[in-house]
Amino acid sequence: MKTLFTGAKILTMKDGEGVFDGELLVDGERISYVGRGAPRENIDKTIDCRGNLLMPGFKNAHTHSAMSFARSLADDLALHDWLFERIFPLEGKLRPDDQYHLNKVSILEYLTSGMTACFDMYYNPDEMARAAQEMGFRTVLLGTVTKDRESVEEMKASYRRINGRCPLVSYRLGYHAEYTCTEGILRALSEASHELKCPVFTHISETASEVEGCKRRHGGLSPAEYMESLGLLDYGGGGFHCVHFSDKDIGIFKKHAASAITCPGSNSKLSSGIAPLTKFVDAGLNLGMGTDGPASDNGLDMFYEMRLACVLQKLLRKDPSAFDAWTSLKAATVGSAKAMGLTDCLYLEAGQKADLIMIDLMKPNMQPINNIAKNVVYAGAKDDVKMTMIDGIIRYMDGTFHVGEDIKGIYREAQGITDRLKAA
Amino acid sequence: MKTLFTGAKILTMKDGEGVFDGELLVDGERISYVGRGAPRENIDKTIDCRGNLLMPGFKNAHTHSAMSFARSLADDLALHDWLFERIFPLEGKLRPDDQYHLNKVSILEYLTSGMTACFDMYYNPDEMARAAQEMGFRTVLLGTVTKDRESVEEMKASYRRINGRCPLVSYRLGYHAEYTCTEGILRALSEASHELKCPVFTHISETASEVEGCKRRHGGLSPAEYMESLGLLDYGGGGFHCVHFSDKDIGIFKKHAASAITCPGSNSKLSSGIAPLTKFVDAGLNLGMGTDGPASDNGLDMFYEMRLACVLQKLLRKDPSAFDAWTSLKAATVGSAKAMGLTDCLYLEAGQKADLIMIDLMKPNMQPINNIAKNVVYAGAKDDVKMTMIDGIIRYMDGTFHVGEDIKGIYREAQGITDRLKAA
Repeated sequence: MKTLFTGAKILTMKDGEGVFDGELLVDGERISYVGRGAPRENIDKTIDCRGNLLMPGFKNAHTHSAMSFARSLADDLALHDWLFERIFPLEGKLRPDDQYHLNKVSILEYLTSGMTACFDMYYNPDEMARAAQEMGFRTVLLGTVTKDRESVEEMKASYRRINGRCPLVSYRLGYHAEYTCTEGILRALSEASHELKCPVFTHISETASEVEGCKRRHGGLSPAEYMESLGLLDYGGGGFHCVHFSDKDIGIFKKHAASAITCPGSNSKLSSGIAPLTKFVDAGLNLGMGTDGPASDNGLDMFYEMRLACVLQKLLRKDPSAFDAWTSLKAATVGSAKAMGLTDCLYLEAGQKADLIMIDLMKPNMQPINNIAKNVVYAGAKDDVKMTMIDGIIRYMDGTFHVGEDIKGIYREAQGITDRLKAA
Repeated sequence: MKTLFTGAKILTMKDGEGVFDGELLVDGERISYVGRGAPRENIDKTIDCRGNLLMPGFKNAHTHSAMSFARSLADDLALHDWLFERIFPLEGKLRPDDQYHLNKVSILEYLTSGMTACFDMYYNPDEMARAAQEMGFRTVLLGTVTKDRESVEEMKASYRRINGRCPLVSYRLGYHAEYTCTEGILRALSEASHELKCPVFTHISETASEVEGCKRRHGGLSPAEYMESLGLLDYGGGGFHCVHFSDKDIGIFKKHAASAITCPGSNSKLSSGIAPLTKFVDAGLNLGMGTDGPASDNGLDMFYEMRLACVLQKLLRKDPSAFDAWTSLKAATVGSAKAMGLTDCLYLEAGQKADLIMIDLMKPNMQPINNIAKNVVYAGAKDDVKMTMIDGIIRYMDGTFHVGEDIKGIYREAQGITDRLKAA
């Protein structure tokens, strides 16, 4: 199947390449041409972009997709009340099959926001693998060991079972957080990481009290120092949130080529703080971006996260030139993809996977046009996503999903599950 | 013309009234019924809401609509460079007729974000009046006296000429800011306000240096104290931004029943700071919300502003329970309407103007449903706006504008003007 996009404005997301008028050819699941004029042989389908923008899809580098049951269930509460009194009791009642349906709602939402992949941290990875595979959504699953739930042995089994089974779905190793694991678990995880030569990811330095607690428990080591000391950064990997990262923590992540993944919406809504993103970028860290789950940051919208990331840094640094639009756009696309190991999904370039989106520039928030990349970050909204293509297949276009599912049926299932969880 | 909405979920925005299933009847430009079952006589048109939400439209209580030419033109710059080197030189070249076309782009954008009115602060008010009237968009114009541009006499003439001419358009008195006016101008403005019995509005305490400068120039008085001392708050009115408001400033605004209008997107993007909104609310101030203009806060999107207002307060107060979703929703609807003098556009209630929107709840970011009001604020996006009705007329529905204009023609005009301004 060859799909030719004509009449496009193209933003490849490669450094130094601005927006240009051109064509893009998709052959099977990969891009085979990007430039001024594509070869015309054996084209199956031609899409006239009518001057709209093609760019790589956003990659949501941190989420908990199945938590859609908790959207707007417990907002505006103190963190402890939110987690222990509202979220955990319901989460404990989730069945694996529930997660399958709840994941689907989040996948639909990702598509509407121009996301072509997610890094999903949750239990029962097979349920997300199943939903992702059926709906054609690229997903990197992340094991989540804690002292109460998934074990390292289970994660190793998942790693071997899931990787390689479907080209859209892969599996990585992770731990929930330092404060929910024993040192024994983390040593076993480090061994697994070395055995499988696989990077490890975790929630890290999300709150000030987490960092204090870690130092108290581990001889003054910060969560990043502790992670390094256990060999958990030996294959790169990285951390989610990184709000309370010291310069030393940044240095450790840099040394191990680990990625920092920021979730500005969640961190601000839960008043965890503002991560020092400009320092990450200045230090040369790879920076990714995520929405976190719908329980804490209700709408999973990369436009919101990109814009918020910029303005929070400007507030933090008291400098309106801090963290410009391009830096945010890069984090939400290339940086996230690198963190997730999706090295085939970085740019619009021949040979890369056809994970791309079309942004409607004929919307009032995009007009008149002075700078398209800045428009996407500072004026963009889900409303502007005209098309989301994953692995060469259009999964969302002009407000319609193409995921082989009855959308209202997905909503009905999710509502039924949510009502049941709340009722008991 | 009678339009009946059936099968709706209804959020009236009256305190203490939650969302209920019901019907709403629009008769001419007003709502004539809200409740469980509307009278069926002489209905011209019935719209089945299919379970979607009807609520009052958002009112954008601070904007500069004609500045769409500067969208994404000069971001990520220090404030002084932005204003003096990039914005002012182009603004100086604007012709009145340019503004007419540039305003139209912003009106389209308001409609997509579910805004049914704006409080527009700019020069040449007749140009915005003309665009608003032609496109059916409710607009409160705000005169903007400075020592270099509009005079108090011109504003008085505009006040008399514009008010009462078209039911959708009204005119109020304003000054750009303390630091761009002489005391003589402000005394004349105060006289005009007393003569016309009209409230006065201004940019106020947007930056720390503005407050310091005012104190230096005016015997230690803050901008709010100075405003009061000149009798400029004698008819209520209010201020935009109010970022660096002291407790005393809050007390002054409260005493005069003046409104504080917050623009969190602009204040953070320009790193001006975070206004102490929780203090305003605790003190009983009327709080409105605005986007500011597209030159400083590129996308004019009330969903972004509402969500941002909440999370910034949570960060500022280090308390995730601070400034809940309802407070934000109220500011963006009722609070803004009160500030703008639109007392007929507060609620969904018989007798009020039919300025209302339909929010599509069958979107993945709205599913499953736990709390609709929190969904609108924390998960909502322009994408969810299914319909925008102003004065009983549908101006936007399912992505299509009904404003009696060729939309691409509007974009073409705006682009031509923008290119001309930049070229010279």
